[in-house]
This record gives sequence, C-alpha cells and structure tokens, in this order.
Amino acid sequence: MTFIKTDIPAPGIVELLFYKGNTGKALSNLADTILLGPSPLSPGERETIAAYVSMLNNCEFCHESHSASVNAHLGDKGETIAGLRKNVNTANLSEKMKKLLAIAGQVQQSGKAVTPQAIEAAKHAGANDEEIHDTVLVAAAFCMYNRYVDGLNTSLPAKKEEYGNMGVRMSKGYKYPPLILRKFVIWMMKRKAAKSKT
Amino acid sequence: MTFIKTDIPAPGIVELLFYKGNTGKALSNLADTILLGPSPLSPGERETIAAYVSMLNNCEFCHESHSASVNAHLGDKGETIAGLRKNVNTANLSEKMKKLLAIAGQVQQSGKAVTPQAIEAAKHAGANDEEIHDTVLVAAAFCMYNRYVDGLNTSLPAKKEEYGNMGVRMSKGYKYPPLILRKFVIWMMKRKAAKSKT
Repeated sequence: MTFIKTDIPAPGIVELLFYKGNTGKALSNLADTILLGPSPLSPGERETIAAYVSMLNNCEFCHESHSASVNAHLGDKGETIAGLRKNVNTANLSEKMKKLLAIAGQVQQSGKAVTPQAIEAAKHAGANDEEIHDTVLVAAAFCMYNRYVDGLNTSLPAKKEEYGNMGVRMSKGYKYPPLILRKFVIWMMKRKAAKSKT
Repeated sequence: MTFIKTDIPAPGIVELLFYKGNTGKALSNLADTILLGPSPLSPGERETIAAYVSMLNNCEFCHESHSASVNAHLGDKGETIAGLRKNVNTANLSEKMKKLLAIAGQVQQSGKAVTPQAIEAAKHAGANDEEIHDTVLVAAAFCMYNRYVDGLNTSLPAKKEEYGNMGVRMSKGYKYPPLILRKFVIWMMKRKAAKSKT
C-alpha cells in the first residue's frame, strides 16, 4: 500500500502524477520529451532502454508498462522484450543498441560507473554523440521514475493484462491531462474501484 | 573531459542543458518545479535534500552547486551544509528534516530500500504526506541529475569559488533561457574560455 494517502485508486506512477498536479505535469513532460521528442533513437529504442533500466532496478510497474510500450512501438509480439529479459547479448537488437544498453546498465549502477571503454564501444558500433547523450539521459531518468514509484510503495494493477492497454496509451505520448479531465478520470477510477469491491 | 562533443565550454549539467534544447528545457522545468514550486517544504529544505543525495552519489558538481544554493537560501554562512557533511544526526536541522533525510538516503540506494519504519519515523516527527512525497521525489530526481552529470563525465568549474555565484543564481530559479539568450550565453562562455587560454 502506498506510503502516503492520495485518495487516487490508480496503480504505479499514475497515482502520484495525479496526486500533485505541478510535479505530475513536469514529470509527464520530461517523459514525453525524452521518450518521444526529437532524437536519432526511435521511441521504440528509447522505451527499450527505459524497460531495461527498470528491470535492473527491479521496478515491476515501470518494467512491465514500458515493456508493453516497446511491444506497441515495435509490433513484434514481445520478441525484443523476451530477449532482453533472457540475455541482452543474444536478444534481437542491433549491435549499436546492445552497446547503448551496456552504457545504460552502467548508469543504473552510478554515474561514476560509466567507462570510456563502454562509450568507445558504442561509438565503434555506430552510435553518435546525441544517441549516447539520449541513452544516458533516459537511463538516468528511469533511475528517478523507478525510485519515485517504489520509494512511495505504489501498488500494481489488479490484473497483469492491464499493462497491454497501458503500453498502447503510453506509446502515443505522455501528455499531462488538464485539471477537468484529471478530475473525470479520478471519478471514473473511484467508480471502478467501488464496483470491484461489491 | 565530457564523453560527447558539445562545443559548449560550461561546467557540469550546464553544458548538457545547453547541448540539447528540448531536454534541457524539460529538465530545467522539473528542477524549478520540485525545488521552488508549491510545497510545504521550503526551497532551502528541498535544496538540502538535493545537496545531501548528491553527496551520497559522490556527484561533486551537483553537491557543491546545490550546497551553494542552500547557503544562499538559508544565509547561515554554510553552517547547515558543514553539519550535513559531518553527520546528519548532529547537524543544525529539525528532527523532521533529519527523518526526511533518512528517507532520502534510502531512496538514494534504491526505491525498494525505503522502509515503512523510516516513513513512520518521519510522520512521528511531524512530516505530512506531501512532505514525504516531495522528499522522495527530490531524492529520486537527484539520482537522475547526478547520473546525467557524471555518466557523461562533464567537467568541474575552473575555480571552486564559482559555486558561490552559481548557488545565488540557482536559488532564484531554474527557468530555461530562450534560444537567443542561450546563444548569447554560449558566445560569452566561448569568449571567456578563449581568453583564459591566452
């Protein structure tokens, strides 16, 4: 159960984003910018980095939801994510992506853990400066989102199947809804929660 | 030396914020929101959490600059920061802040490391739900900023004294400058860098 009382019956980060509007908006805007904004890496590649770092941080909500978003972007029936979970080096990923994920894995440990060798290896595999920048930023950002979600002990969805629809929505963007729409969504959530109790 | 070529001779995160405008703006907006936006914790208290987590992450640039911002907010000639560096439990901080910093220290390790006991202790010392929320978010966010700054191996200021003025500027806000102003600031930085070489 979430460590703070929010009165918002939503799983994971959604509860927190709706709890406080100004921080919710800034966090949503950052996610939208780093995952779907201009970048030489595709949204699917950036979501793969997000799913990978969330897996390393054992953040179930973020890993499952961003994996679902990867599936929506790539349309590969979960093959990339299945490979990622098994072994990055044998997964269905380009050499460049494998080297970028190695950097992301170092960022997950600590900023100081990133080695010049890992950077060189990514460049050798064809990564340019902006791709390396975006990889470090996405990996660092998920070290924040994961800690936010788990540090406040938010809940998981009632059913694992909910991630599928969540991923489709996420793949379209992370725009923060205006207050009136948020109020309506919260009302709907409460109604659904009340119904599931009866 | 920074792992990527940006052509911006600025220390720490400033180089990265100016390197890519859309991510720079979203990251600045988040910092402004969580450190200076509406919160029951004062900006000085939130900057103290930022400086503390940056110290735990061994991120020199973020620790020094946010410490300077704490000094600017509190006007206590560095007493709080000196105490924080020595021992949080004996530092010149309220009982509530000590308990919130204990939570921040757990967030620095991992989202999963935050214990119900630490949350209870903070509540017992008078922290409300929003203060706990804001503490976890600021601590999590600096696990991102620290990794971004160190993961790309950005440089430190030429002189340690530069942090003082930096802290004063930071204490006034983190608004991202418009493109024309950014171009002017970069031109000034390059001029200064060229002069210091001759």
